[in-house]
Amino acid sequence: MTFQQEIALRTREHGQMDDLTERLAVIVAASGIQRGIANLAVIGSTAALAAIEFEPGLRRDLPEALDRLLPPSRNYHHEQTWHDGNGHSHLQSAWLGQSLTVPINAGAPVLGAWQQIVHLECDVRARERKIVVTVMGD
Amino acid sequence: MTFQQEIALRTREHGQMDDLTERLAVIVAASGIQRGIANLAVIGSTAALAAIEFEPGLRRDLPEALDRLLPPSRNYHHEQTWHDGNGHSHLQSAWLGQSLTVPINAGAPVLGAWQQIVHLECDVRARERKIVVTVMGD
Amino acid sequence: MTFQQEIALRTREHGQMDDLTERLAVIVAASGIQRGIANLAVIGSTAALAAIEFEPGLRRDLPEALDRLLPPSRNYHHEQTWHDGNGHSHLQSAWLGQSLTVPINAGAPVLGAWQQIVHLECDVRARERKIVVTVMGD
Repeated sequence: MTFQQEIALRTREHGQMDDLTERLAVIVAASGIQRGIANLAVIGSTAALAAIEFEPGLRRDLPEALDRLLPPSRNYHHEQTWHDGNGHSHLQSAWLGQSLTVPINAGAPVLGAWQQIVHLECDVRARERKIVVTVMGD
Repeated sequence: MTFQQEIALRTREHGQMDDLTERLAVIVAASGIQRGIANLAVIGSTAALAAIEFEPGLRRDLPEALDRLLPPSRNYHHEQTWHDGNGHSHLQSAWLGQSLTVPINAGAPVLGAWQQIVHLECDVRARERKIVVTVMGD
Repeated sequence: MTFQQEIALRTREHGQMDDLTERLAVIVAASGIQRGIANLAVIGSTAALAAIEFEPGLRRDLPEALDRLLPPSRNYHHEQTWHDGNGHSHLQSAWLGQSLTVPINAGAPVLGAWQQIVHLECDVRARERKIVVTVMGD
C-alpha cells in the first residue's frame, strides 16, 4: 500500500527550523498504514530535512554549526557563476540531506520523545517549500 | 510485504561504534523478502547510523572527526537550557543521520565487502538503544 | 510492486561528480510504478550519493568543502593500518551518505529543477562503481 501527500511550508529566512512531526503523524494516520515506512523529501536544493530535538537551543545550534563549517562566502565557484549569494545554502542542504525515512508502527511514526522531524531553511531568503511524504506498508 | 523487527544495543560511552551488519542480515533472512529495501532507524536523537568499513582505525577516525568538527562545548544554546553536556551529541546525530536504507537482493542486504552498517553512540554516557529495522519488498 | 536495476559508472579521480538523474528517470519509467519511492545505494564505502544542483561551480564546491573539513591526511588511524591514503575517502563517504531516497509521482522522480541526484567519487583513484536502484510503489 502506498499513500502520498504534500506538506506546504512558508519560510522567512536562512536558518529557520520548522517542526514537521505533528503533520507527519496526521498524514500517517490518514494513510491507514499500520506498519512500514514514511519517507519525507523536500523539493529543492537549498533546504534540508533532519531529525533533532526541537527545542529553542538546538534550533539555533544546528544552523549555527552549519554556518560555521559551510559558511556564507563569495568565494564559492557557484557564486562566481550565479552571484546569488547562496553557495553555502546548496552545500548545507546537500550535506545535511533533503530526504529521510521514519519507521511506522501501530499506525504512527516511531520516534523518541526528543526526536522531531524538522525542515531547515538553508537559503538566504523567504521560500515556499513543498515536502512530499510517501507512506508505504501494510 | 512488510516485516519489522528491533535490534537492542547497550552502549558504554561516547564514540562507541557497533557493527549491525550481521544482525541486519539475520532479520532480512527471517523476513523471507528476496528483493526490496531494509530501512534502519535508531530511536533517539543522540545516536547515529552510518555505513563505513568497520575496522579498528575508522572506528576511531569517525568519532574523532565528529568531535573535531562538532566539538563538545558548554557554549551551545542547548547547554544553556539543559546543562546536560550533550549539545554536540545532538548535532553529531542530526548531521550523520539517524536512519539509512539498504537494498535487498537474493534475500540478503547488498553491501560491499568493506561496507558495514554501524551504530555510533554520540551521547556522553551509557545508553540502551533500540534500532527499528523495516524490510519491504517481494 | 518492487523493481530493481543497477547503474554502472566508471570514475577517474577523487572529487568527480556524475549526474545520475536521467538514468534514474529511465529506470523509474521502466518499472511502470506510478507512485512510491526510488532508493539509490552505491555499493562500496569510499563513494557517496547526494542531491545537489549539478552545475560547474557546485561540482567543484562540494568536493572542495569535503576536502577542507575531512582532509586527506596520513594521520588517520585507518592509514596507520592500511597505508592506502584514503582515510578521508571513507569519512567523506560515511558522512555525506551512500544511499538516498526520492519520491515517485506520475511515474517519474519528484525533484526540483535544480535538484539533481549525483554520485561523488571520494576515493583517490579510478573506480568501477555500481549503484543499486530499487523502485517500490503502485
